Amino acid sequence: MAAKGNLVIGQSGGPTAVINQSLVGAITEAMNHKEIENIYGMRNGVKGFLNEDLVDLGKESKEELEKIANTPSSALGSCRYKTNEEDCLNIFNICKKYNIRYFFYIGGNDTAETANIVNEIAKKEGYEAHVFHIPKTVDNDLRSNDHTPGYGSAGKYVAMFFMGDNLDNLAIPGIKLNIIMGRHAGFLTAAAALGRHDETDGPHLVYIPERIIPLDKIIDDIGNVYEKHGRAVVAVSEGILGEDRKPIMASYIHEKDAHGNVQLSGSGALGDFLANAIREKLGKKLKTKLRVRADTLGYGQRHFPTIISKNDSIEAREVGKLAVKYAMQGENSGSVTINRKQGKKYAPEFGFTDLKNVAHYSREMPDEFINKEGNFVTDAFIEYATPIIGDLPEIGKFNFYPVNK
Amino acid sequence: MAAKGNLVIGQSGGPTAVINQSLVGAITEAMNHKEIENIYGMRNGVKGFLNEDLVDLGKESKEELEKIANTPSSALGSCRYKTNEEDCLNIFNICKKYNIRYFFYIGGNDTAETANIVNEIAKKEGYEAHVFHIPKTVDNDLRSNDHTPGYGSAGKYVAMFFMGDNLDNLAIPGIKLNIIMGRHAGFLTAAAALGRHDETDGPHLVYIPERIIPLDKIIDDIGNVYEKHGRAVVAVSEGILGEDRKPIMASYIHEKDAHGNVQLSGSGALGDFLANAIREKLGKKLKTKLRVRADTLGYGQRHFPTIISKNDSIEAREVGKLAVKYAMQGENSGSVTINRKQGKKYAPEFGFTDLKNVAHYSREMPDEFINKEGNFVTDAFIEYATPIIGDLPEIGKFNFYPVNK
Repeated sequence: MAAKGNLVIGQSGGPTAVINQSLVGAITEAMNHKEIENIYGMRNGVKGFLNEDLVDLGKESKEELEKIANTPSSALGSCRYKTNEEDCLNIFNICKKYNIRYFFYIGGNDTAETANIVNEIAKKEGYEAHVFHIPKTVDNDLRSNDHTPGYGSAGKYVAMFFMGDNLDNLAIPGIKLNIIMGRHAGFLTAAAALGRHDETDGPHLVYIPERIIPLDKIIDDIGNVYEKHGRAVVAVSEGILGEDRKPIMASYIHEKDAHGNVQLSGSGALGDFLANAIREKLGKKLKTKLRVRADTLGYGQRHFPTIISKNDSIEAREVGKLAVKYAMQGENSGSVTINRKQGKKYAPEFGFTDLKNVAHYSREMPDEFINKEGNFVTDAFIEYATPIIGDLPEIGKFNFYPVNK
Repeated sequence: MAAKGNLVIGQSGGPTAVINQSLVGAITEAMNHKEIENIYGMRNGVKGFLNEDLVDLGKESKEELEKIANTPSSALGSCRYKTNEEDCLNIFNICKKYNIRYFFYIGGNDTAETANIVNEIAKKEGYEAHVFHIPKTVDNDLRSNDHTPGYGSAGKYVAMFFMGDNLDNLAIPGIKLNIIMGRHAGFLTAAAALGRHDETDGPHLVYIPERIIPLDKIIDDIGNVYEKHGRAVVAVSEGILGEDRKPIMASYIHEKDAHGNVQLSGSGALGDFLANAIREKLGKKLKTKLRVRADTLGYGQRHFPTIISKNDSIEAREVGKLAVKYAMQGENSGSVTINRKQGKKYAPEFGFTDLKNVAHYSREMPDEFINKEGNFVTDAFIEYATPIIGDLPEIGKFNFYPVNK
């Protein structure tokens, strides 16, 4: 049985291109249930909620909601706020004050953790509440899931960027590094490989946090590709680790976010550092002046308008809807999950799991997705990610029929 | 009268999203004229041509040509090679050797300069040749033109990035800088403002090479925006100058390209430098720990697949076609131009001008496009650029109906 009362929903962590699909999926589903009296939104996640900064989402028009669903970034505002036990108690008290019986929080593993603590308090206090975590992360690093809403679209952006960049690098050959988001998991960096047609296409190398490759080996790898193809396009995760298991650039970067994570994005330092190292060391080895460039892909990965994976968009909508449906079926708490049905054709299998199974810890790329040398993805990864990322644009190429000299 | 003989076409300088439209426009038009016996392509511009590295484009299928037209980057390969008088003499001799009577070179002002010198040699030697420059540059800095193919699509990418980034910054407020391509001209940076709906939307400030604004003033401007909106999104050209009229970051960056230009793209140094300066100086002034991030937009600006302005694509095709048509009408040389017809509704007016009028020198943003303070664009710029950039995606926003506490 589902309780009669109000609903609150919030968004947390880094925005994605489809997080508003989940939000609108939950809102429109909630509108179907008369047990839900008011549909409240938290401004800027629990940070706003703790200030009782609530908005009435039930008054929004369906037409505007559809526009919002197709708009990237977190329309309610977000926060990067690590709740402590006292915060969670305050959240619980505000829920009581506003007769909130449905608590939905869209985000990553830290967000699930907050939902989990709030849920534990409600249980202990004997307050009937339905507390659900709705998954979201471009990093694709939530446990108990095959993949996570937000990843498909971010991956599509990365794959398309590399398609363009490979053609750019074909036109003006050199060594090009692109730094991709993903602190601990290489999924997004690995997506760089999805637009390749054959082994001459870049990215020729992919470096991810799951494998520690000494800098000298990276430079040797790039040198080998350069000698073979006369150029090299390389995907590098912002989170690659040095041999001391610390982020290679940790010492260069000063900021930490509230979750204690080293701030790696929004900085060109890693790309510039690697480009300089390659220019110097590899240039010396090959006895040539190398053209080396580095781009750091930046926030476009998580918000670029219209670069949206169709399946990602559909699934993001669905997990929002399902959180409400599960709650209305009387489930007290959980995190909505996406897994994959058995069989040749891709089909998502939705469900939910205990908040504890998603909260706090994250997951990495499985070994089967990483090649033996630790410098590229496997065919198994391409097979895995292709339906999540969706169609990529067609590329035309000349046959280059030679003219006799 | 047009000569009977072979045609060669090449691409030069940085790729764009529509440069292959110009190439395919010229090739398909050339196929219509029986005076043109063979259609040759230069591999990697004049650098390849000097090695007689030619391909037979007449053998390519129409179907593949259309795919190539819609593919970003320079399908023939490009070069950044500054020709000297001797090179141009060699180019001329190779033209004679291959009975090349039609010489088409797609690129910016340096490319027009090469075409100009080759044309002068042909004239002096009494060799009948039709030498045309086909305009291309994301910087939009060619003289004698209202705008240049490549700019519209690059501008669309920049405008869309800022639309997403403004929403991102709304969700997680702070100060966000984005560094945009454009060594001497601010047109591409100015395009950041095209997706704004009102003055609360970012970018709130736009800094371009045409105006020298002291760093302390930039920081004050950002502080004022931050105090007003609680956040700030800022567009900064990679080419902004310090009070000594040198690029602010010139001393940090070591590479120069063959044209003697300081290498400013593919490096995060300027963004990181500015972010640190703001974090420290403004943070001290406002007595708060500021969240400051910087992205350097990188090569996606010139090659991101599918982010293409419709008018840009059409016009890029047309200038390629027209170069061939003008040559077939018996014109000996010129640079194809795009200007704007008088009248309320946007319509391009194509023509051609003497190579000298486009070669070597570049143009800057006119004063009427820059506000008095030198830190934003005017409505005249928005009016100018909107039809070039084309439609931008719709954005949905909540009304945020407050809930009584």
